[in-house]
Amino acid sequence: MATINEHFLKLRAGYLFPEVSRRVRAYQEKNPKAKIISLGIGDVTQPLPPAIIKAMKKAVYEMGNKATFHGYGPERGYDFLIDAIIENDYKSRGVDLDRSEVFVSDGAKCDTGNILDIFGLDNVVAITDPSYPVYVDSNVMAGRTGGANTKGQYKKIVYMSCTAENGFIPTLPKAHVDIVYLCFPNNPTGAVATKKILSKWVDFAHKRQAILLFDAAYEAFITNPKIPHSIYEIEGAKEVAIEFRSFSKTAGFTGVRCAFTVVPKKLKASGPGGKAVKVNPLWSRRHSTKFNGASYISQAAAAAVYTDEGKEQCRKIIDIYMSNANLIRSSLARLGYEVYGGKNAPYIWLKTLSNMSSWHFFDRLLQNANVVGTPGEGFGPAGQGYFRLTAFATPKNVKEAMERFAGI
Amino acid sequence: MATINEHFLKLRAGYLFPEVSRRVRAYQEKNPKAKIISLGIGDVTQPLPPAIIKAMKKAVYEMGNKATFHGYGPERGYDFLIDAIIENDYKSRGVDLDRSEVFVSDGAKCDTGNILDIFGLDNVVAITDPSYPVYVDSNVMAGRTGGANTKGQYKKIVYMSCTAENGFIPTLPKAHVDIVYLCFPNNPTGAVATKKILSKWVDFAHKRQAILLFDAAYEAFITNPKIPHSIYEIEGAKEVAIEFRSFSKTAGFTGVRCAFTVVPKKLKASGPGGKAVKVNPLWSRRHSTKFNGASYISQAAAAAVYTDEGKEQCRKIIDIYMSNANLIRSSLARLGYEVYGGKNAPYIWLKTLSNMSSWHFFDRLLQNANVVGTPGEGFGPAGQGYFRLTAFATPKNVKEAMERFAGI
Repeated sequence: MATINEHFLKLRAGYLFPEVSRRVRAYQEKNPKAKIISLGIGDVTQPLPPAIIKAMKKAVYEMGNKATFHGYGPERGYDFLIDAIIENDYKSRGVDLDRSEVFVSDGAKCDTGNILDIFGLDNVVAITDPSYPVYVDSNVMAGRTGGANTKGQYKKIVYMSCTAENGFIPTLPKAHVDIVYLCFPNNPTGAVATKKILSKWVDFAHKRQAILLFDAAYEAFITNPKIPHSIYEIEGAKEVAIEFRSFSKTAGFTGVRCAFTVVPKKLKASGPGGKAVKVNPLWSRRHSTKFNGASYISQAAAAAVYTDEGKEQCRKIIDIYMSNANLIRSSLARLGYEVYGGKNAPYIWLKTLSNMSSWHFFDRLLQNANVVGTPGEGFGPAGQGYFRLTAFATPKNVKEAMERFAGI
Repeated sequence: MATINEHFLKLRAGYLFPEVSRRVRAYQEKNPKAKIISLGIGDVTQPLPPAIIKAMKKAVYEMGNKATFHGYGPERGYDFLIDAIIENDYKSRGVDLDRSEVFVSDGAKCDTGNILDIFGLDNVVAITDPSYPVYVDSNVMAGRTGGANTKGQYKKIVYMSCTAENGFIPTLPKAHVDIVYLCFPNNPTGAVATKKILSKWVDFAHKRQAILLFDAAYEAFITNPKIPHSIYEIEGAKEVAIEFRSFSKTAGFTGVRCAFTVVPKKLKASGPGGKAVKVNPLWSRRHSTKFNGASYISQAAAAAVYTDEGKEQCRKIIDIYMSNANLIRSSLARLGYEVYGGKNAPYIWLKTLSNMSSWHFFDRLLQNANVVGTPGEGFGPAGQGYFRLTAFATPKNVKEAMERFAGI
């Protein structure tokens, strides 16, 4: 008889965002007139800027003509996009990458989940708490963990607690770890890492022969020039780190779907008999076997992000979101909340008032202010008592949400 | 130290299509003037028809305007597309499906690979030989097989040989099997399955408590009204089968990326203690955790496939390809080849002359005729001595390729 992957049954409750949607839907059905403002799921609201629309129109036109039609593209992405990525995101910061080190995909969520395919089930995984739920859930599904305890922490995962006490920067784990997830600017806390902090982690990975999975999906929100955008700005990082990037927040591509992952050729991990094996060809094989390239139209759109107009227009949209972040920070601080993040990051992480639980705060905010946020607890037990707001709404909605916040 | 997934090292040689590309590239570099015609990789050549281009233009326009911008969509796909799929592909054939049973994705290649996440590693997998290489390779990567023998067959996989002797229809396996891959119309042989044949497989799955993974990516090429397009046209199939569909060949979406998978709510597999567990929620969880929805533009395009204009225009394109298939069949038959498929399927499967090996024939065809096909051996050892041609080239190129074939 066919059997299921029983590891799936270890997963607790629903995936965070569907659960948020479910509660919002239920509330809206009971209160059809309520004008709900979402500062919840990290989804962008500004339309795609003209330079990107222009590139997409051209790509669609090409798809309708025999001479310019595009069928299957290279699984790893078109060179026109890979070259633009290397030139603009890396070379400009002193990082040299080869085309074969960049893998274009349809999303960083897919990549951070799928990357696990190429690693052994025996790896001990270290994940910040709180964190983007995909890191934990995809490891649970793969069977790299035991069951969950009452706090929702899974056996075998090494949790690195990030709270106000350590400034939301994880401490180097003392326990044995093989794969470490880092995300800066952080989702959900909005924390950023300096060169010094990242250097510590690169050193750690070298000493422990561990691999860093570095999620840089929010690097475009960094405004402080001293903060690195890529882990590869740290010497020696190519030997120990995989980096995930996305156009979702950088350029409003949440509905367009385009991202990329960098797997340096210098990166090695332990193979049969402890022999070091290159990781890049494994991901290349995974990518060409279980993926068929991102949409040509999405890749053409992504390339337009790197044109002069594209850069300027995307920057302006990010400025709108960062001005939202500023307003949220200052408004909440005025209301007496402890507020974190929101500088160099689109996420604002706040402490609920009166030690209210995250989901309790969620329900109260939804009912009393018709504002949706994300319960910190949904990102891990250390997020209990915290709450995430995103800067991705329209300025008008952010303003109104902040006014309503006063009344809860 | 971080370890790799050592199962990857069991994979033999490169994935078939990259190897084909490599040989073609090498030949083209040495012979820059050669005008190579590809009847190799199953990639479409006709541009997208006007109804689809129109829908994509509208979708791009929407993405550039605040009021109509689309960010993250539902991971399982937009209802406007799911409803069109249910109505046109299933209801019209007497199959009732619920929205929650249809999962829209960016490709059937991804889906057929990723579906394995939800099944136990202990399942014995039966795969036709020859077959689409992803079925085998994705099971090898997951660790569901042993190493390969000299013929390239992996231990633990139950191979179901399909040759001219059995009309390319696999015999029901006597050995214990839990998961069975079936693909009709078949890639690479072009064989199709009647209701009677599919009923046998559904019965078999019920008796053995096995699950059928039914790849129907080429159903649009069926012209004989007696041949079922969906496995669910067979009574009892919902209890035992998952079906994969794609817009790639149906509507020329190889560069657009849109597909879907049907996981019926009635489908169950064995969970802890042998208790039957519903499979649909597992795939739903996998889909929402490791995937973030297909591009809105691709989904809008896919919905246009089901409009009256879309249907008519896609049908005309398929007619072009099927007329190519006819020409290939008749030309090769005239040249003395044994030819299979090419009726109700876009693939023509031929026996090489003089028992030449598949790769030998590939090289000879490339060098003497500058025509690219796919070596049958690349689809499995039983494909040795066979060769696949696709009907997806332009009529002009197909005509010229057939003329050149005479000279090899």
